Amino acid sequence: MSFQHVAIIGLGLQGGSIGLAVQACLPGVITTGYDRDPATRARAAERRLVQTVCETASEAVAGCDLVIFCVPLGAMGMAAEKVREALPAHALVSDVGSSKQVVAKALAEALPGHTVIPAHPVAGTENSGADAGFAELFRNRWCIVTPPPQTNLVKLSELVAFWEALGANVEIMDPEHHDLVLAVTSHLPHLIAYTIVGTASDLEEVTQSEVIKYSAGGFRDFTRIAASDPTMWRDVFLSNKDAVLTMLQRFTEDLTALQRAIRIGDGETLFNHFARTRATRRSIIEEGQDDARPDFGRADHSSAAD
Amino acid sequence: MSFQHVAIIGLGLQGGSIGLAVQACLPGVITTGYDRDPATRARAAERRLVQTVCETASEAVAGCDLVIFCVPLGAMGMAAEKVREALPAHALVSDVGSSKQVVAKALAEALPGHTVIPAHPVAGTENSGADAGFAELFRNRWCIVTPPPQTNLVKLSELVAFWEALGANVEIMDPEHHDLVLAVTSHLPHLIAYTIVGTASDLEEVTQSEVIKYSAGGFRDFTRIAASDPTMWRDVFLSNKDAVLTMLQRFTEDLTALQRAIRIGDGETLFNHFARTRATRRSIIEEGQDDARPDFGRADHSSAAD
Repeated sequence: MSFQHVAIIGLGLQGGSIGLAVQACLPGVITTGYDRDPATRARAAERRLVQTVCETASEAVAGCDLVIFCVPLGAMGMAAEKVREALPAHALVSDVGSSKQVVAKALAEALPGHTVIPAHPVAGTENSGADAGFAELFRNRWCIVTPPPQTNLVKLSELVAFWEALGANVEIMDPEHHDLVLAVTSHLPHLIAYTIVGTASDLEEVTQSEVIKYSAGGFRDFTRIAASDPTMWRDVFLSNKDAVLTMLQRFTEDLTALQRAIRIGDGETLFNHFARTRATRRSIIEEGQDDARPDFGRADHSSAAD
Repeated sequence: MSFQHVAIIGLGLQGGSIGLAVQACLPGVITTGYDRDPATRARAAERRLVQTVCETASEAVAGCDLVIFCVPLGAMGMAAEKVREALPAHALVSDVGSSKQVVAKALAEALPGHTVIPAHPVAGTENSGADAGFAELFRNRWCIVTPPPQTNLVKLSELVAFWEALGANVEIMDPEHHDLVLAVTSHLPHLIAYTIVGTASDLEEVTQSEVIKYSAGGFRDFTRIAASDPTMWRDVFLSNKDAVLTMLQRFTEDLTALQRAIRIGDGETLFNHFARTRATRRSIIEEGQDDARPDFGRADHSSAAD
């Protein structure tokens, strides 16, 4: 491994998982970390998310050759500015943010002269904070690396090797295309899940207790991603506005078409639409991107049976 | 148990699960079944979903004291008519359909003189057909029973006891209210999931292969319920049109408000909305209606680790 010392700024789900994964997969590598929240630092030290939890960001990056910013998108620039003095000139700068054009700009402006190669591991759970991370988060998940034009190819291949060492499959992508792809595979699903969970909370005719009790009819699936970190997701929508609005427009058109089919009783349109979406699920399972067991392999059925 | 012989019409996920559950939980009770599809009958016999798979619906209901229709909503009336001659006069008639006003009407019209008490077990997986059923499907799930006005209370309590014997918790509800509650906890989520999976399939800028690869960002959650049986769901939307359109209208208003917040960069509105939806997830887990483990306890992380 080309990196001897990895510094992690932000010790939540992503940062904590990277720290644990480096210690598990790259045992010779030094790990340091910092989080601006003292309680997170304390818990990160207890859980040994990194070998050394530092009291300042500058301390954490001193002597590192790779720094990964794992903070909400809106905090990237400020977090990077705080390490400007202490960051070694040769250190590679990366991140894990969910939209990439904005991050590339923020990190390059805050750390002029440094090689910046943004990345986005497409992996996570609905949990956040210092208790959420685990070493296996990136295994068999994709990590999208979005090098700016004229990126040093040696540094790029080092970053790719780093993510592969943590168990991820790496794809190189143009930042603009990344933001469009993730708008549909991640941002729009989160927006819709947040919306419907909110809608269900505000009804007058149906009580909240009824929504909870009968959530196994499908609703509960949406509540998982709607339990994700609000700060992170606010920043995702603000930072990838154009692509999200584009995808939202397509979704709304399609929803309106199905709404019309329901209103006029056009069963054929409904059936044809519902019949073709099965293939997508099958492909996701075939490519190892989801659990093949019914109901995601939820414990209800099996554990309730004993 | 008051029922000595239960007949099941339709041997898919629901019918097959009831057959298996009765054999597991009520060992003295006779089970017979019928499905209009010969391949389903053959597989049902192989899997012993019921003790006797009959070649006609009339044979299946002969001598029964409870018949449960487990066919798509649009097929209820016709399926019921087929057993009119053979169904014993004292036999209780029920079903498992996802909308209840339409079913109550269809069954009452097809089987005049019989006691009809519709029911809806809020339980399922994305799988359908004779291979999908399992005995534990109803354990710790709610079954909503929607008796018409002036229902015989003895028969009602017998049906409640039946579902409780299969492991379900039973709630009595007015059919109209049922249809409104399920419109939000089940029908709207399915409609939205079907829509977004369709939207993602039709994009020109993002390939289907990219949608599959990066689906772990949230999209894959929606593909599960969008893989549900198309015939069943076509009939749900056609049969619960008014309630679904009402809920869809609320959802669209809320989505439009969030869309506007994204467009004008109103981070406060986004944050406040995203922060309050977490509580719903917490309640669902506390009430035992979902798996508390991150990511529904999906196998990716743990199984990939070995």
